Amino acid sequence: MTNPTAPAFTLHDGITGVSGFQVASAAAGLKASGALDVALIVSDRPCAAAGVFTTNRVKAAPVQVDQAVLAANPAGIRAVFVNTRCANASTGTVGLERARATIGLVAGALGVPEDSVLVMSTGVIGTQLPMDRIAHGVSRTAGALGHDWASAAAAIMTTDTRPKAASATVQLTGGPVTIAGIAKGAGMIAPNMATMLSTIVTDAALTPDAAGHLLRAAAEPTFNRIVVDGDMSTNDTVLILASGASGVAVATEADRAAFEAALTAVCRVLAQAVVRDGEGVTKFISLHVTGAASEADARRIANTIATSALVKTAFYGGDANWGRIVAAAGRAGADFEPDTAHLWIATGEHDHATAVTEGGLLLFADGIPTGYDEAAATAIMVAASISVHLACGRGTAAALVWTCDLSHDYVSVNGHYRS
Amino acid sequence: MTNPTAPAFTLHDGITGVSGFQVASAAAGLKASGALDVALIVSDRPCAAAGVFTTNRVKAAPVQVDQAVLAANPAGIRAVFVNTRCANASTGTVGLERARATIGLVAGALGVPEDSVLVMSTGVIGTQLPMDRIAHGVSRTAGALGHDWASAAAAIMTTDTRPKAASATVQLTGGPVTIAGIAKGAGMIAPNMATMLSTIVTDAALTPDAAGHLLRAAAEPTFNRIVVDGDMSTNDTVLILASGASGVAVATEADRAAFEAALTAVCRVLAQAVVRDGEGVTKFISLHVTGAASEADARRIANTIATSALVKTAFYGGDANWGRIVAAAGRAGADFEPDTAHLWIATGEHDHATAVTEGGLLLFADGIPTGYDEAAATAIMVAASISVHLACGRGTAAALVWTCDLSHDYVSVNGHYRS
Repeated sequence: MTNPTAPAFTLHDGITGVSGFQVASAAAGLKASGALDVALIVSDRPCAAAGVFTTNRVKAAPVQVDQAVLAANPAGIRAVFVNTRCANASTGTVGLERARATIGLVAGALGVPEDSVLVMSTGVIGTQLPMDRIAHGVSRTAGALGHDWASAAAAIMTTDTRPKAASATVQLTGGPVTIAGIAKGAGMIAPNMATMLSTIVTDAALTPDAAGHLLRAAAEPTFNRIVVDGDMSTNDTVLILASGASGVAVATEADRAAFEAALTAVCRVLAQAVVRDGEGVTKFISLHVTGAASEADARRIANTIATSALVKTAFYGGDANWGRIVAAAGRAGADFEPDTAHLWIATGEHDHATAVTEGGLLLFADGIPTGYDEAAATAIMVAASISVHLACGRGTAAALVWTCDLSHDYVSVNGHYRS
Repeated sequence: MTNPTAPAFTLHDGITGVSGFQVASAAAGLKASGALDVALIVSDRPCAAAGVFTTNRVKAAPVQVDQAVLAANPAGIRAVFVNTRCANASTGTVGLERARATIGLVAGALGVPEDSVLVMSTGVIGTQLPMDRIAHGVSRTAGALGHDWASAAAAIMTTDTRPKAASATVQLTGGPVTIAGIAKGAGMIAPNMATMLSTIVTDAALTPDAAGHLLRAAAEPTFNRIVVDGDMSTNDTVLILASGASGVAVATEADRAAFEAALTAVCRVLAQAVVRDGEGVTKFISLHVTGAASEADARRIANTIATSALVKTAFYGGDANWGRIVAAAGRAGADFEPDTAHLWIATGEHDHATAVTEGGLLLFADGIPTGYDEAAATAIMVAASISVHLACGRGTAAALVWTCDLSHDYVSVNGHYRS
């Protein structure tokens, strides 16, 4: 664990550039609106790469294809192509062929080997990639490479309302390196990710194994701790590409810790941005469960609360309905007894670098409500950012998840998404 | 198992009366509207009784008290008193005292032993029972006993929009007996019940053990198979009281089977009525998962689909978004492979007495969509009752759940319930 009070990195909102990487985006005609709908990220040299993928048993074609490419050539990745509007999931052998054909188009356009290209897709499940438009998008992006990361982040949006990009510079033993990432999210965001696509690039030199370990370590407390609606997508993918273009390696244990901290910070910004921009979201909730009997119990309780429709609608309504939170904890299948539980709410956010405060308004203690001031509770509940802390009093394990409310707009967006 | 094609019982919509039982309802001032808010059910003789209760670790005071009463005096129950507006949950020792005090008031008013009275509460969590109003309600109902079951069913409503009552007459070896029940539901309806209160009475003679076995057998495929929002309440209770006032015992194995079939039919009507009247419900969904590798897998897949916000909003929108159904199955933690799965939709309802049809519109087969006619799919999806059949192709286990859509009105009702 790194010391969160003294980060060896500087976090930036957005991306100014990463040496050796170029990006492009284009409107390939996938989105009927004519908006940007494909993006291409290219490294000028082979990268060590790794991915974390959906654990859904229904895996989209690009997930299956990427897993095969990464297994075969983890030190030789050159490019990632992303399309929106079509998830290429539940598309059978035709879908697999078209994912591979997309790779072929990208490899041809860039003059790189086919086994050096990864693909990501997001959008509607069950429709086939329109290859004429994909070809158009590949051609357009391959001919327009530059450093407009903001447009690339915009191009991968679906029901997102804002592009999501972040970067960090971190000082390693051999010098500074940059870590940069873009992401898209919006719906189907669950524990263990969701229609969550993210590509993270770095000019640090890493081995494929190190890239994989670092990505999994960084994704666990970030991408895997966000809940919008509890659904998990068929396409979830977070990729990391490490080019080594900086000439600086992650060489020492201190380097590894510093890099992991910076990578985690980038992932946290992206993951939280996904929740903040979740479908219909009006409130950002930091939910900290402490005092659980085990890590598994802590996560089970946190995820059950975060996915409860009753809890989420209460947040939407600005109602300090602690009874729904406690009742959700009680049905989580974990060791939970209301008689040893305490529940606080406060305005603002928690993250892993923030010590848990028992400040805020204590709503519930030892099995019963505290006689708190309802007006004070409402004043907290109408805030845009709310921290909830449930101390279980059963042990020492904890879990932090970031989640959101369930609004009329969520229903509107998802009641009519395909039309 | 009984033969569902030849029921030995007649099912009635509503309740005309059950020999030996009387009911009453009153407006005790709990509901600000002045509507009926308490109900009392009384037997003229001691009943064999049993209950099934919430498995939430947070159990309301009436649940705890009823469990103790039933353990101590399972053959001597005389009355059930129900109040709305206050769940008496998360109310600590004061809540337990007030649940017992309510029993004392009922026992006093009826002149029956304290250990012969059960209580049920529904409403907001964490507020104490207002004992003056409860006393008023006990007094009013105890003095007005009669046979107005419809008013009793209306009195226990919370966010329900319709009273729920059903009865059946069943021919046993010794003659006919009646089974009758009332229920309330609306929100927090999950697998394993929810803010689901139901009292079922019969004039058949049963032992307490038989009453318990029959109630659990009848609740399993009915009350435990309904999903509104996936939340499970602190108060869920289904009680059965068997008075023997008919003079007819459940004496033979054939009697037991006939009685179980009739009791299950009554429970099914009540459970389905709870879903139909769920908060904001516009569509009733019969979801049949077949071909699962195990019963547990079948239920896990069915419950994951039924609680998916994305699936439920698609039903609300009338969108045949089979991709969300298949993706939900894929994240259920069960043996599920899209390549062996088939998904049909049709208008209308399934219940356990209906053979699974593979008719309807096949949307998805062997990992890919079928090229079905979208207009035909939409014509089904806009119906008020929709049957969904997911055949997993992994084994022979099946599960049927009844669920509903997630609408703007659900969000409205639950965003502002306490205010």
